[in-house]
Amino acid sequence: MNFASDTTAPAHPSVLDALSRANHGLEASYGSDTITARLRTLVARTFGTDDFDFWLTASGTASNALALSCFCPPTGAILCHAEAHIERDERGAPEFFSGGGKLRLLPGLAAKIDQNALRAALASIDHGFVHETPAHVLSLTNLTECGTIYSPDEVALYAQMAHAAGLTVHLDGARFGNALVSAGCDPSEMSWRAGVDVLTFGLTKTGAIGCELILLFGKARSKFEELKARAKRSGHMPPKMRFLAAQAEVMLDGALWLRLSSYSNAMALNLAGLFADAGFRLAHPVQGNEVFVRLPEDAAAALQFAGVKFYSWPGGSYRFVTNWTTTEDDLAAFKALLG
Amino acid sequence: MNFASDTTAPAHPSVLDALSRANHGLEASYGSDTITARLRTLVARTFGTDDFDFWLTASGTASNALALSCFCPPTGAILCHAEAHIERDERGAPEFFSGGGKLRLLPGLAAKIDQNALRAALASIDHGFVHETPAHVLSLTNLTECGTIYSPDEVALYAQMAHAAGLTVHLDGARFGNALVSAGCDPSEMSWRAGVDVLTFGLTKTGAIGCELILLFGKARSKFEELKARAKRSGHMPPKMRFLAAQAEVMLDGALWLRLSSYSNAMALNLAGLFADAGFRLAHPVQGNEVFVRLPEDAAAALQFAGVKFYSWPGGSYRFVTNWTTTEDDLAAFKALLG
Amino acid sequence: MNFASDTTAPAHPSVLDALSRANHGLEASYGSDTITARLRTLVARTFGTDDFDFWLTASGTASNALALSCFCPPTGAILCHAEAHIERDERGAPEFFSGGGKLRLLPGLAAKIDQNALRAALASIDHGFVHETPAHVLSLTNLTECGTIYSPDEVALYAQMAHAAGLTVHLDGARFGNALVSAGCDPSEMSWRAGVDVLTFGLTKTGAIGCELILLFGKARSKFEELKARAKRSGHMPPKMRFLAAQAEVMLDGALWLRLSSYSNAMALNLAGLFADAGFRLAHPVQGNEVFVRLPEDAAAALQFAGVKFYSWPGGSYRFVTNWTTTEDDLAAFKALLG
Amino acid sequence: MNFASDTTAPAHPSVLDALSRANHGLEASYGSDTITARLRTLVARTFGTDDFDFWLTASGTASNALALSCFCPPTGAILCHAEAHIERDERGAPEFFSGGGKLRLLPGLAAKIDQNALRAALASIDHGFVHETPAHVLSLTNLTECGTIYSPDEVALYAQMAHAAGLTVHLDGARFGNALVSAGCDPSEMSWRAGVDVLTFGLTKTGAIGCELILLFGKARSKFEELKARAKRSGHMPPKMRFLAAQAEVMLDGALWLRLSSYSNAMALNLAGLFADAGFRLAHPVQGNEVFVRLPEDAAAALQFAGVKFYSWPGGSYRFVTNWTTTEDDLAAFKALLG
Repeated sequence: MNFASDTTAPAHPSVLDALSRANHGLEASYGSDTITARLRTLVARTFGTDDFDFWLTASGTASNALALSCFCPPTGAILCHAEAHIERDERGAPEFFSGGGKLRLLPGLAAKIDQNALRAALASIDHGFVHETPAHVLSLTNLTECGTIYSPDEVALYAQMAHAAGLTVHLDGARFGNALVSAGCDPSEMSWRAGVDVLTFGLTKTGAIGCELILLFGKARSKFEELKARAKRSGHMPPKMRFLAAQAEVMLDGALWLRLSSYSNAMALNLAGLFADAGFRLAHPVQGNEVFVRLPEDAAAALQFAGVKFYSWPGGSYRFVTNWTTTEDDLAAFKALLG
Repeated sequence: MNFASDTTAPAHPSVLDALSRANHGLEASYGSDTITARLRTLVARTFGTDDFDFWLTASGTASNALALSCFCPPTGAILCHAEAHIERDERGAPEFFSGGGKLRLLPGLAAKIDQNALRAALASIDHGFVHETPAHVLSLTNLTECGTIYSPDEVALYAQMAHAAGLTVHLDGARFGNALVSAGCDPSEMSWRAGVDVLTFGLTKTGAIGCELILLFGKARSKFEELKARAKRSGHMPPKMRFLAAQAEVMLDGALWLRLSSYSNAMALNLAGLFADAGFRLAHPVQGNEVFVRLPEDAAAALQFAGVKFYSWPGGSYRFVTNWTTTEDDLAAFKALLG
Repeated sequence: MNFASDTTAPAHPSVLDALSRANHGLEASYGSDTITARLRTLVARTFGTDDFDFWLTASGTASNALALSCFCPPTGAILCHAEAHIERDERGAPEFFSGGGKLRLLPGLAAKIDQNALRAALASIDHGFVHETPAHVLSLTNLTECGTIYSPDEVALYAQMAHAAGLTVHLDGARFGNALVSAGCDPSEMSWRAGVDVLTFGLTKTGAIGCELILLFGKARSKFEELKARAKRSGHMPPKMRFLAAQAEVMLDGALWLRLSSYSNAMALNLAGLFADAGFRLAHPVQGNEVFVRLPEDAAAALQFAGVKFYSWPGGSYRFVTNWTTTEDDLAAFKALLG
Repeated sequence: MNFASDTTAPAHPSVLDALSRANHGLEASYGSDTITARLRTLVARTFGTDDFDFWLTASGTASNALALSCFCPPTGAILCHAEAHIERDERGAPEFFSGGGKLRLLPGLAAKIDQNALRAALASIDHGFVHETPAHVLSLTNLTECGTIYSPDEVALYAQMAHAAGLTVHLDGARFGNALVSAGCDPSEMSWRAGVDVLTFGLTKTGAIGCELILLFGKARSKFEELKARAKRSGHMPPKMRFLAAQAEVMLDGALWLRLSSYSNAMALNLAGLFADAGFRLAHPVQGNEVFVRLPEDAAAALQFAGVKFYSWPGGSYRFVTNWTTTEDDLAAFKALLG
């Protein structure tokens, strides 16, 4: 049983089929192909708007860093949670891409930025005080690093606060589908309708081989040419982009991505139930495909000895991640182990 | 007929098959998977040595920039031909990844660095003169941007000159297979045996979806940890790396890459023959899968009007690139057009 | 009365005299002049060692950033206090100079890094975990941002901990003289003998026009050529360096810098006494030339209305800084105001 | 006799006097002092306009790099002469400050950009072709690196060409006074009236200790806040800025800078006459305070053996630079040596 990460899963068979379908004939390179063109319509339908531009990458770190670097100048800062992926797990990618911008870390329970901390951080921005680095971007993560969600209303409130202070709003949606399903809203309600200016929309963890969209909404579209230039110069403009577009297309078509997200969320809830039945306490509410549970060290060791894969997490819990390949049998076997 | 670039071609069917085979079960992320492990043996056999480390990316620009940034400090320079891809077509990627290093451009016929110009550039390096940026890396391209080759002896001579001046030798092998086939040597003779320290070994243009290896040989291996850190922070450590490794594996297995390179080279020679028969003069000898030909403007326009795709090239010629999907029928049809 | 900052003070008259003396004849540029050569002997005597290299700048921000960038790679991090000048007041200079390195902020009372927090940060470094940015440098500030000191023993302990984890130790000594005088030790005891590898040694706040030394001790000297290259490319190699060297010379000669530091420290103690007498509580012990006091808002406003210059400080106190020009009369007048 | 560089000269006595006058009382730091305020009026009078902003540094490299980085994004390029100081002598400062921008080198006689080469470079800019780095800035140098001048008309023509292509025009005026005197025009005619958007206006080589102004004219003023932020984060916002302002003030007051430039230009002409009389050929016309002369190697060696200081120059000539301290006696003694 492998609950280490949803990135350990293979791709959904439909994705492989889509690659095979895409693998015919000659196509213009660098995003000028017919599949990428077709994809635009599908993205528009998914997000209920035509007021957007997008780019495709194969890496969430790349998508986040590219998105942030278009809105945070080298002399500026990005507000994010202290446990955000962009701070903890991307080896300084935002600093690299932005040319030395800073991350300002905000506290908050369950990896959600505390509202008062955000208010104070925004209030302290003084563009006239040249010595201090002013925030230019608010970066939220949904699903958060603790598997919790911001509701669309929370995103909207935070975005409103950020906009009032002149900031751009970025949403790291590496597990965007899981958050949407859990919140019970549509993609637009959790993005541009809530005030998100730039969305990193991940499909890799959902079931692609490697496929992430960077979406610029509304005024943020003014940065599209810059985004492409930055993508090129960072090596994120692979020549045969049709194979990225094909992955996105098959995931969006018929909302496969939401069905897969829904499935992995359900498995996480089931897994959480097993822990509860066995008397273990959850560290955070389960609102996506991640379960954080407080286990005694010997229990964790016993599970690992039995071959179960999962990570210990800062703060004293253990993280179990489900994915589209997690089966009822996996859970049954895990239940037996827990017993 | 599309001779615009070998990157317009689809992937070889074997590559798609390999992806499907790789798409089973859960695998450790970020290069710790079993396919990447298996690939090492195959690379060792291909290059006839075990004294190397490697990394995989999906982009030639990324591979070049990552490789160069490990050996050129921000305060240093890279010697390359004035028409090198790293200078002309990568939107400043080497400067970005190296933190502001410089490219020093050297002249030379047919995109090959002139030996005297190299000698003079190396002789002028003065590490004690702090105002000027000293060269740290020599970057060669083989196949060159004009479709010509450096022979193994030429690479060895230039590498020797560079090493004597304390430089690291990089080879941009976006079309490494085409150069090898043309030179009639094995991979080791054109890389580490010739003194190449770091090789960007491209398989995308050969027939992969997107797959490039960065190979560090011998002493250059000391930079492997740095290479991985730089790959991570630039978004070139995609979680599901097994799908990059699977592409490389199938291309190296049974030397598929060399057979495909051989085929596209042969088609280029045939194409060059058609031009010669029609009385057009080649701008450069055809030593790979690229044909540069001097066409009257009206002839070029007529071909384009007839639907043939190719690029006009700085210096007054036109570039036609063949690939593994170019057929005898394509050439026959093209011949008819030329007539 | 101006207690805003010691940087508001003019230079000591001796410094102007030294500039005039330096202003004769032609001298080699860029640090090859005779005064810079002479200065080396004086620095050696001051620090009781010949095992060092040094560079001169006119800015503390520049000195810190240059020093840090030689030891923290773009892929690395610097441990510092959350209130450190390099974090709060240098507009991202360390990130800029290091090419995107990160600052990791540690807590601690009175702007001194908490020992347990440092221990935990050092223990968490995992160079094998490529996703996270490992610390390469520990940066201490002495005098701290709260006007407190690390004793030589504390510096030595922290340096030992840092070295054991493979880090380089930097000391931001913008008010090094004030710290030394307060600790009652000699320059070597607070620098290389305590394990400091690279010292930013400020003389501007002490009484120069603009003069800071970057000192590399022992093994850190291996970075001297890199330091000069970085100084050049950041515009910190002014041609007429003799005028920087002349400032340093006159300050070190006869230990003028220590006498001026001693004087401003004494005035700070006197000022603190006035606050105590008036019933106000100090926020931190006075161990240099800075007094942090808790004032009711109306009292602070009244002082400002009366023309006294000082800053309110994060954390709810007010900062008063003395300098070499602060007089007994200033204090007497201030006492009258307080009454 | 020292003709190595005008930076080997001491400062004019008036500059030292100005520093002494500035050295009284407490002053706000970081450019908020009264002298900097006063200086603005003087700059306005000097340039015949109030439509400007300015910043002060102590280094020409810093001024150039700061100026360029405000107008060339990391994804852009700067057009300059192949022998420009920003290319040859600043150790990659423009690349560093711009975050990896490129310099595109243009040819031209006597260090002046060839008009046709400029026209071709401008015509080749294609913002829609993402792979290539488009030029954003044209950087001219006046006095050029070969001691020649662009006339105001030439600057105006080049600026017009650059503006038509959407570029910003930068003038590196490290020896601006020498160029002005030689051209016989006023500062406005060689700067904003000729279309210069941002001027690096050097006074160090003229006779200051270290003082350079960055001047933003007209629309370029929109970058003033960014310029200050970049100055701060690169360590070019020294606290006691009054001492930079005082140098500029005394140099501009009564046009001291122009009188000193005029003097050193005259001495250069005299020196050139000595060479001519002795039968040596000049490599370039003498239009400022630099003489480039073709000397037989043994003649050069004999002069150096006799203690004369000067540099050999790329291209086969020798450079002799006069300055405000060069005397008739120096020239007489030199004439004797030449004889």
